[in-house]
Parts: sequence; structure tokens; C-alpha cells
Amino acid sequence: MKTAASKARRAQGDRSRQAILEVAVHLASVEGLDGLTIGRLASETGMSKSGLFAHFGSKEDLQLATVDAARSIFIEKVIRPAFEAKKGLARLRRLCEIWFDYAENHVFRGGCFFAAASAEFDSRPGRVRDRIAEIMKEWLEALRWAIVDAQEAGQFDLKMDAIQLAFEINALEIGANWALQLFGDKQAFTRARTAVLERLRSRATSAEPIIPVAPETATVTGA
Amino acid sequence: MKTAASKARRAQGDRSRQAILEVAVHLASVEGLDGLTIGRLASETGMSKSGLFAHFGSKEDLQLATVDAARSIFIEKVIRPAFEAKKGLARLRRLCEIWFDYAENHVFRGGCFFAAASAEFDSRPGRVRDRIAEIMKEWLEALRWAIVDAQEAGQFDLKMDAIQLAFEINALEIGANWALQLFGDKQAFTRARTAVLERLRSRATSAEPIIPVAPETATVTGA
Repeated sequence: MKTAASKARRAQGDRSRQAILEVAVHLASVEGLDGLTIGRLASETGMSKSGLFAHFGSKEDLQLATVDAARSIFIEKVIRPAFEAKKGLARLRRLCEIWFDYAENHVFRGGCFFAAASAEFDSRPGRVRDRIAEIMKEWLEALRWAIVDAQEAGQFDLKMDAIQLAFEINALEIGANWALQLFGDKQAFTRARTAVLERLRSRATSAEPIIPVAPETATVTGA
Repeated sequence: MKTAASKARRAQGDRSRQAILEVAVHLASVEGLDGLTIGRLASETGMSKSGLFAHFGSKEDLQLATVDAARSIFIEKVIRPAFEAKKGLARLRRLCEIWFDYAENHVFRGGCFFAAASAEFDSRPGRVRDRIAEIMKEWLEALRWAIVDAQEAGQFDLKMDAIQLAFEINALEIGANWALQLFGDKQAFTRARTAVLERLRSRATSAEPIIPVAPETATVTGA
């Protein structure tokens, strides 16, 4: 005869790897990827350690799987909706706006998962750090391609340095996330949105003289 | 009769608290403040755990002392030399330039100590996090005051939002440090210097039409 406890354990054991990883992603965004041990995840999910070992052989495998789960969430929440906008400036603006919403509204419990993970692992050579760096490069490339598309569409000057603009946008995002996480400073997001918008405006060619202000950024002037 | 080993131990024991903390600061900048246990510091300095316990009662005390030691180094290496420049725009530029040099040249072994420490502790309420946040506020205030001084000297428009500019400068610094640490991307510092200089130039009034380019930033054009 099965006890209620064993049934509950079995039910917990049935949770998909994906559901476990979602818990892992949020946990890691708050406590760091390095705090993400099989034991810590067991106590958070209520699953047995042996059940978790069946999914993830080692702490490093668990960390890598968590990083890739966070990447999937990021693609679903930020990249995919932004790519519904037209190639070029419209898509670039959506990438920025949706990123700000994503970080400000805590899609990950502890703010931007990748900002936290890259700061945590940047001094620790290994597979986890390499994977985080690859994903961060993908993000910078997504920004750069949107900028290049805008240049090819005549919305930005072709001579403009696309990597420079992508760097600045990313820095403003990281700076906003930093201030929100450390000071709880929501104003930082208004400031970063203002700065990004100013940068896009000042670089837009006469072919696209006015960049309409989206609802999220409508209140920034004079802030 | 004292053995060579006991003499060596005593000589190690004589190292000042300051010297221990300097090791702690560099160690924490690479491995994180949370990795900074009495045991880890003992193996790094060659001192006994009990000797270290005499200096620092708990791990949290050690972390707090390390944060304040890093602050002292930062003041000595960045703030003090920048404050030798004239109040206003000159001082603001020196604050930015010296900061870039400090982070790029690894004054702390693992890059900017405070960028790493704030990312590590931002989700962990407590005395360490509060102290890091206080010090970061001091830095943002130092930037803001230099900007306000420049406004009062007629070098920037009085209506300009000083907090906004301080936020943007800090974000570009954090973004450069992030890229250097994660990708080993030295170009990021050139990019951040270019962006800061452009920001200062675009905001300078006609009273200060040309901002001379310092040696560190002389190679940025066309980069």
C-alpha cells in the first residue's frame, strides 16, 4: 500500500525537467549559479536528491542546463516578440523596450539572469562561463544586426559604428539593472530608457526624423 | 629554542591587518566576497586560522572589513588623484579617465571590486550589501557633484539633469568592466571612453567648446 508521502514523492518525481529548471533559473537569479547545488534545488522543489541526480549528473551539468533554460526563457520573452517588429529601427526599439520591461518586471526573480550570471562567473574559467559568454555575444549580435538592418534601410548613417551603439545600449541596460538590484532604484530604468532613446534619435537619419515614443517611455521627459 | 617554522609563523602573524585585507580584496575581486572565508584567506596568506580569527571575528566582519579596505584603495587610486584637478569639468573628466585606467589595469585582480561585489550581494539583504550600496552611492554622488560644479562654473547648462549624466557615465563604466571581465574585450574600454567623451562634449556649453582629449582617449576616433 502506498502512503500519501510516497505518492507525493512520485508526483513530484513526475515534474518535467523543464519545470525543475524553471525553479533553478529563478533560484540562481537570486542566490547565484554557484549556490545552485542539487541539495539546494531539492529543498526548493521538494524533490529527492536522487531524483534530481537522475536529471543532472553533476553540479556543472545542472548549472549549464539552467543557463540554457534561462536562454530559452529570454528568447521566448524578449527576442521572439521583438522579432515580430519590422526589421531595422522598429525591431531595435522593440528589443530595447522589451528588454527593459523584462528586467524591470522581474521575469527572473532576481533581475536579469545573465547580468547576474556573467558577473558571478567572469573570473571562473570553465564550461559555464564560456556558455554565458556565448549567450551574451548572441545578445550583442542581435542588437548589432538590428542596427545594421536599420543602416541598410537608410534609418541610420551607413558609416555609423554599429558595434559602438550596441555596446552603449547594452551598457545602459546593465547599468539600469545594477541600480535596480542594488538600490531598488526604479528611476534607473526611466534614465536608461531616456538615454537609449536619445541615442537612437541623435543617430537617426532624416529619412526617419521622429521616433515615436512608446507608452513605456512616454513619461521620461523632464524626469 | 625557536624553530624556523615558528619564527616564520610569528613573522606572518606580524603582518598588519591592512596587509591581510589587501590580499582579501584581491581574492574577493576574483572569487567573490562570499568565497572569502577565514579558511580560504588562511591558505592564501599562509597565516593560521586562529591568527585570522583574532583580526576578524566572523565571516561577515571579514567581508565588511574587506569592503572598506577596497573603498580605501579606491579613494587613494581614483578619488584623490582626480580631486587634484580643478573643480568642475576638469575634475569630472579625471574621475572618468582614472576610473577607466583603474578598472582596465586591474588595480583589483578581478577587475572593479565594487562592480563584482554589488552584483554578488544585490539579492542578499544584510550589512555587507548595505555597505556596498552606500559606497556605490558615494561614487555616484562624486560624479554628480563634479557635474553640478561644472554647471555652476558655466561649463554645462544649469538645466541639465546631473543625476542623468552621472547615471550614464556609471553605466558605461559598468558596461566596459562587464565586457572586459566576460570577454577579455579591451576594445570595450575604448568604446566606453568614446561614449563618455561624446556625452561630455555634447553637453558642454560654448564657454567650454572643446574638451581636450587626454592621452588615454587619443586613439578612440574611428575605432
